[in-house]
Amino acid sequence: MSPTPHALDRLIQEFTKLPGIGPKTAERLVYYLLKQPKENLSLLAESLNQVKTEVTVCSRCYRFSDQNPCLICADKKRDHSLICVVAESQNIPVIEKTNAFNGLYHVLGGLISPLEGTTPDKLHISELEARLKANGVKEVILALNPDVDGETTSLYLSQLIKPQGIKVTKLARGLPMGADLEYADEITLESALTGRREL
Amino acid sequence: MSPTPHALDRLIQEFTKLPGIGPKTAERLVYYLLKQPKENLSLLAESLNQVKTEVTVCSRCYRFSDQNPCLICADKKRDHSLICVVAESQNIPVIEKTNAFNGLYHVLGGLISPLEGTTPDKLHISELEARLKANGVKEVILALNPDVDGETTSLYLSQLIKPQGIKVTKLARGLPMGADLEYADEITLESALTGRREL
Repeated sequence: MSPTPHALDRLIQEFTKLPGIGPKTAERLVYYLLKQPKENLSLLAESLNQVKTEVTVCSRCYRFSDQNPCLICADKKRDHSLICVVAESQNIPVIEKTNAFNGLYHVLGGLISPLEGTTPDKLHISELEARLKANGVKEVILALNPDVDGETTSLYLSQLIKPQGIKVTKLARGLPMGADLEYADEITLESALTGRREL
Repeated sequence: MSPTPHALDRLIQEFTKLPGIGPKTAERLVYYLLKQPKENLSLLAESLNQVKTEVTVCSRCYRFSDQNPCLICADKKRDHSLICVVAESQNIPVIEKTNAFNGLYHVLGGLISPLEGTTPDKLHISELEARLKANGVKEVILALNPDVDGETTSLYLSQLIKPQGIKVTKLARGLPMGADLEYADEITLESALTGRREL
């Protein structure tokens, strides 16, 4: 005789499938939900179903969107000669919030990582090439994480795109806002030195 | 123009309502779900709805159950003269797993905590009193957390129940399995000394 109702066990199991959520956290979440008004359970279930039916992938930039082409790709006021390459869809809102970019995006769907078996053909790289050939793109900005996979992917893409006569840039490296020189790592400090700017 | 689809924003918001899940974690969970097959979204949504419709509260012991009275309360093989008082429903499976208890349970729904405004009338204490008066209960085991709120509640309950001529016990304090004497705190060690057992 199981002391926990079957439906509870099943929901706990479903939560455990999520990244970073172990059995104990899942249990805590489920019992929390049970103590809430039943409407909250419905709201969460509804939202999940809504995401399933409404969210699609833009066939141009491969970001998650509720329209295809997405609002950014369809916007004629944006600079269509500028493409910012990101690893994942969720990187886009962060860049949009800066208001410093007015071009289009391209989501790779990951980064090249030989160790994890992510080879270039598993990413939306051929689709990026097709976009570059078709349109009058002047510059590609690589906005990838400053780590091994990010650098590998940046190098691969720049060698692929540069021969087409398109300018390839990547985000500046340097000290982040509020950093303490004393605790900055050597690579960051070196980047900050070589990339120093005149005032 | 929001760069994130509305349905995504809504689901992120729903996840943020859960305890210990901030906006960044919620975003990570939602984007993870989007990358899974769409069936997984349905499974989670279904499980939530199933919990909503199938899980009820046992009107005797106040634990979450799919039956009323629950399987434990309805089981005639269990010792109905023994009641184990716990703070929350999720404490029961842990005790059941020990196979060391064959009585019934009573879920308080929290602990007395004047600072958080949880007074005895907000817990299932009057219902516990009614159970004790009606049935031939011989012993009440208080299985509450060994912290300030747990001790306060234990004291309150023992003063309430003892005058009725019912034995009140609480879980033993002492060194947990695998503990290192050197790192044991003084209160635990004191409990272990005063509660020492002959071999």
